[in-house]
Amino acid sequence: MSASFSSVDYDLRQQRLAQAIKIAQLEGMALNAGPSLTYLTGLHFHLSERPVLGLFSAGNPPVIVLPELETGKISNLAYQTSSFAYGEDPETWQTIMKEGIQAAGFSGRRIGIEPRVLRVLELDLLNSTGIDFTLVSGEAALAHLRMQKDEYEQARMQKAVDIAQNALDAILPEIKPGITERELAAKLVVALLNNGSDPQLPFSPIVASGPNSANPHAFPTDRQLIKGDLLIIDWGANEGGYFSDLTRTFAIGDPQQEMVEIAQIVLEANQAAHNIARPGVSAQEVDQAARAVIEAAGYGDYFTHRTGHGLGMEGHEAPYIRAGNPILLTPGMTFTIEPGIYLSGKGGVRIEDDVVITEEGLYSFSDLPRELKILGS
Amino acid sequence: MSASFSSVDYDLRQQRLAQAIKIAQLEGMALNAGPSLTYLTGLHFHLSERPVLGLFSAGNPPVIVLPELETGKISNLAYQTSSFAYGEDPETWQTIMKEGIQAAGFSGRRIGIEPRVLRVLELDLLNSTGIDFTLVSGEAALAHLRMQKDEYEQARMQKAVDIAQNALDAILPEIKPGITERELAAKLVVALLNNGSDPQLPFSPIVASGPNSANPHAFPTDRQLIKGDLLIIDWGANEGGYFSDLTRTFAIGDPQQEMVEIAQIVLEANQAAHNIARPGVSAQEVDQAARAVIEAAGYGDYFTHRTGHGLGMEGHEAPYIRAGNPILLTPGMTFTIEPGIYLSGKGGVRIEDDVVITEEGLYSFSDLPRELKILGS
Repeated sequence: MSASFSSVDYDLRQQRLAQAIKIAQLEGMALNAGPSLTYLTGLHFHLSERPVLGLFSAGNPPVIVLPELETGKISNLAYQTSSFAYGEDPETWQTIMKEGIQAAGFSGRRIGIEPRVLRVLELDLLNSTGIDFTLVSGEAALAHLRMQKDEYEQARMQKAVDIAQNALDAILPEIKPGITERELAAKLVVALLNNGSDPQLPFSPIVASGPNSANPHAFPTDRQLIKGDLLIIDWGANEGGYFSDLTRTFAIGDPQQEMVEIAQIVLEANQAAHNIARPGVSAQEVDQAARAVIEAAGYGDYFTHRTGHGLGMEGHEAPYIRAGNPILLTPGMTFTIEPGIYLSGKGGVRIEDDVVITEEGLYSFSDLPRELKILGS
Repeated sequence: MSASFSSVDYDLRQQRLAQAIKIAQLEGMALNAGPSLTYLTGLHFHLSERPVLGLFSAGNPPVIVLPELETGKISNLAYQTSSFAYGEDPETWQTIMKEGIQAAGFSGRRIGIEPRVLRVLELDLLNSTGIDFTLVSGEAALAHLRMQKDEYEQARMQKAVDIAQNALDAILPEIKPGITERELAAKLVVALLNNGSDPQLPFSPIVASGPNSANPHAFPTDRQLIKGDLLIIDWGANEGGYFSDLTRTFAIGDPQQEMVEIAQIVLEANQAAHNIARPGVSAQEVDQAARAVIEAAGYGDYFTHRTGHGLGMEGHEAPYIRAGNPILLTPGMTFTIEPGIYLSGKGGVRIEDDVVITEEGLYSFSDLPRELKILGS
């Protein structure tokens, strides 16, 4: 664990969770290894074939059910816990799980889980003990807590953006005809680490050139850059468990006229979202502001994804900036703004920033130039 | 996707799955984004809030249910598929999911899933369509397929081990008093990439020094190395989607006598497992061979984990080399051998190799020296 984590007040976060549990009329929460468990406890566990469960309730200290070989992680915590450790034979896990549930005081009512994180492995284990309770989604309650980023968290995110921006600057001279997407991706990862990112990157960089750039979630290939390509780079850094997630689009040599035009449209869509986002505006209105620009230009069918997503300890989290999401923005919410246009067989453009809602409006953590830059000509 | 993936015969893998489905008396398999889906289709999807499901049955081409923005990945496949794409509003997913299930021909019988990979998100989506079927674990059938690594897969794993070994060699001169665990971990990641690892590492390296080395799954901290430390480095590379996972233990300056002794015991335990593993021997016998050495030396209570785990497209997969696992080793199985001794407050030793069962016995992909090496003195 990095030193910065120790400056977080986990007792406070657990108290806020206890309130959220009451408001959601739950008896408790059962969380497996993942960002919410880390947010509440500071503990990091690999998501593996050995389940880890944190059981939270309003009246009891957190209960951690975990494999014996992980117990070293919970020996020096600044807050109280009860822990129940199991050995390597899965046949024995159910007994330990039952003891944990009893210690958490779960007595047969509604327990919140995270459907997007909890696996059937943990679900079956929770359901194996003979204690009867109803598992319901606690996602909204957890999102409500985690969406309100405090100063500490915002500072981490600003640093994660700075690292990412410096890393991209460092590899710009490498972007020229002949280099492959995979080679560029590897150089970018090295630059991220050299600029101070924690080793566990939020995601493996997307480096997508030419026709590949028309695939929003492309994996880097052995394709060499050639003149006339658009090049999308989507990358991020990790600073103390908080992520950045940026995208810039470049042209290799002189771009075709249509590519110049869609780059300008996406830039205007990105700006439209920046301009509208402020406290009290809904997520769907931000999405619509960006989408309207692209639709008005006749490319609505080629903007195939939402305008953005929340960002923090996860690469994608609440609030989701999409049509149909009525959530109102409030200060401390952090998310991406990333409109794009993707023309199959030709190429794509995406411009992605990381922003935070402030009392006054919006602040963009990222400030790299957004215009289509011509490289390697 | 790297070029090497295109040389895999996915039709053949899907035919073998169809056989496995019949043998397991299932109607089909429902797999979400993860290594088994990639193994069967060559497709890579991020595990995100947007579910992806591959539906496999004996009589139909694979059905892929996926978000619209991912459809670029399935446009040029060498085998037949049916795909069903959904938009950004989760309210609409259920209808698309139902169409996918109907196309797969699932008609109300037993469908295999992976409890260790499938989340409640996908489980609820599968169960939301009104089509009645029973979801059961298909893990054993999938493990049976994936455990038999062919020549292509073994060659990828050898390469992943070579990359990892070269990367460690490259940073040995950096290992000396004063450097922090996190700094060393970052240098090791850079060395892995410079030596040719794919950017998505199997896991973030463990660099654990002094008392931290007594925690088998430590995360790197800002602790500086000092003389007298033991230092555990646990790291791996990714070659075309196949992983290595190695551990070596070093001493910083002259180690205490007890540390020298436990290093020797762990080395003998590692060798005992190498010596016994061959076709027809069970996983639990391999575990016991290593464990017996450590128990005989009086440190049995301090070897707190199993002797090893399968390795391939996942960092941990079948076969698990643990007490109580009767599975018999067969040629093509690849796994780790990694006994350890962990003395709380003092330090730990682990020595981990990656091996494959051959017709004749066992071949170790890894051959870095296993003896306790003294560095930085």
